Amino acid sequence: MKGTVLYGPGDVRFEERPEPKIALPTDAVIRMAVTCVCGSDLWPYRGLQPINGPTPMGHEYCGFVEEVGSAVKSVKPGDFVVGSFATSDNTCPHCQYGYQSSCVGREFMSTAQAPYLRVPLADGTLVKTPDGVPSDDLFPSLLATSDVLGTGWFAADAANVKPGSTVVVVGDGAVGLLGVLSAKQMGAERIVAMSRHEARQNLAREFGATDIVTERGAEGVTRIKEITKGIGADSVLECVGTSESMAQAIEATRPGGFVSYVGVPHGVELKGEDLFGTHVHLHGGPAPVRRFLPELISLVMNKKINPGRVFDLVLPLEQVADGYRAMDERRAIKALLRP
Amino acid sequence: MKGTVLYGPGDVRFEERPEPKIALPTDAVIRMAVTCVCGSDLWPYRGLQPINGPTPMGHEYCGFVEEVGSAVKSVKPGDFVVGSFATSDNTCPHCQYGYQSSCVGREFMSTAQAPYLRVPLADGTLVKTPDGVPSDDLFPSLLATSDVLGTGWFAADAANVKPGSTVVVVGDGAVGLLGVLSAKQMGAERIVAMSRHEARQNLAREFGATDIVTERGAEGVTRIKEITKGIGADSVLECVGTSESMAQAIEATRPGGFVSYVGVPHGVELKGEDLFGTHVHLHGGPAPVRRFLPELISLVMNKKINPGRVFDLVLPLEQVADGYRAMDERRAIKALLRP
Repeated sequence: MKGTVLYGPGDVRFEERPEPKIALPTDAVIRMAVTCVCGSDLWPYRGLQPINGPTPMGHEYCGFVEEVGSAVKSVKPGDFVVGSFATSDNTCPHCQYGYQSSCVGREFMSTAQAPYLRVPLADGTLVKTPDGVPSDDLFPSLLATSDVLGTGWFAADAANVKPGSTVVVVGDGAVGLLGVLSAKQMGAERIVAMSRHEARQNLAREFGATDIVTERGAEGVTRIKEITKGIGADSVLECVGTSESMAQAIEATRPGGFVSYVGVPHGVELKGEDLFGTHVHLHGGPAPVRRFLPELISLVMNKKINPGRVFDLVLPLEQVADGYRAMDERRAIKALLRP
Repeated sequence: MKGTVLYGPGDVRFEERPEPKIALPTDAVIRMAVTCVCGSDLWPYRGLQPINGPTPMGHEYCGFVEEVGSAVKSVKPGDFVVGSFATSDNTCPHCQYGYQSSCVGREFMSTAQAPYLRVPLADGTLVKTPDGVPSDDLFPSLLATSDVLGTGWFAADAANVKPGSTVVVVGDGAVGLLGVLSAKQMGAERIVAMSRHEARQNLAREFGATDIVTERGAEGVTRIKEITKGIGADSVLECVGTSESMAQAIEATRPGGFVSYVGVPHGVELKGEDLFGTHVHLHGGPAPVRRFLPELISLVMNKKINPGRVFDLVLPLEQVADGYRAMDERRAIKALLRP
């Protein structure tokens, strides 16, 4: 089998890799229906996150169960399944509290840009689609639930979005755009997308954004304050992970409001004294996608949402390197890969 | 009138000060029943927070309304009142959301270690005791509601303490001890006080602590993990304000748990990457005491709680310098001052 390996900045190869096998009784092996490139894959691709030698890539997946270990009970060969980028037993105390991405048995998936994938803790990690195998046209949206929608949804949930909320989304990547969709589903009244990129602004509007702010930094905060009559937003979703985006998110929030952050922070340092004065709630981390998967899959299957719209580039899996390049150059929001 | 002025590290003087007068129609002047020294007063007293020349001190107060401005409607001369260390109009959007200590008209009180005090925004700031002037023996507990209990209560509220919660309190100062009392009132099942000081341990137990942990830092975290069966606490109240105490609080919390911080942080820096991995909720800031005052006053008047127990040293106001010294040397938890 061939799979995706990052060799260094800008150097993605599709090359021979070992075929995944059942290694533990709790494993499953799945045949990929579709996979994709994540915004977080760009950090090491850009050399902004070090790697130790050639590194297999990919953590978003959905597909057909090929084989299961002897202890697996909830899925069987032929089932169509989605799983999170973080594996979970879904029974430990952290899972029970809804933080499956902090499961005591957690592993981060990392070899999913390939035609086959070993999934540890299959019973706790994989969720089967109801009513059998879905039609092909739903594959992109089902794939989206695996991470990018699950993460945008967590961003809205962690920022306490409620019916009637005023919400700001910082970041117009796929996660930010699906944060807009999530806020809309949760009943937000006003949703401000911060974006200066026309195609992304349009998708944000399609997903439910009521306002677009193109300014950034202090000017962006001033615009949010204008829009919110000087008060600040109830909920701000920080979907970038830089110092600047975090500062912008915190300053755009009203005292007592909620800031979520779901992109791995890079070089973000928060001064206790500064944070103290803002009175914001802060919550984030790796999204516990497993908590939301049944609901998100159901919303997709019932065609209530179409998160697969973030895939504006579709490539054969072997052209994965083109997908990275297009996203790096911001020519594509997100690249779907078909094995 | 004489009042308290800090001249520099360790140099507290009780000296002639101008008599407070009504300066704005929304002001009240009160005659102090009792006042006290705050843990936060020790930062400048110890030279750890710079001052610009001689600085009047004190922000905790309760007493009798002496005079009111022409616009004041809710209190009148003779009323017994308590107010927060932060003034508030109690009508602006931030106040309406329950964050009165971020009121658009906020001023921080700073001249309360004196026999008379001007209180701006009297209608929004002061809360009158029900059923007239309370008996003298309730003065210390009513004074406590003004800041130290209100802050401990906010710590428990901001850390999401609920019936059945497992709670850890970092810091055995008066705020931490009243955080224990607050957690108990909110129905916490297990309350761990971190303290290595016998008198404070005893008071923590009296207030509802079920466990005492004397270890600090990594060892303290290990003990909390043992007590919580490896999970971590649901709610951790950080009532100190140093880097060490904040790290200890965050590490003692379970993924998805809640950390509150209510002491002004000094030198605390949080790395985004580290915080991301912990999955904690973080909330704090200057306690919006005004939100809680009616309830806290009622609990005191009905003798459900006795937060005045934190005052283990009572001095005539003119001996205020001895109060600072005793607290600095940890000979006293908190010094009550009688004009």
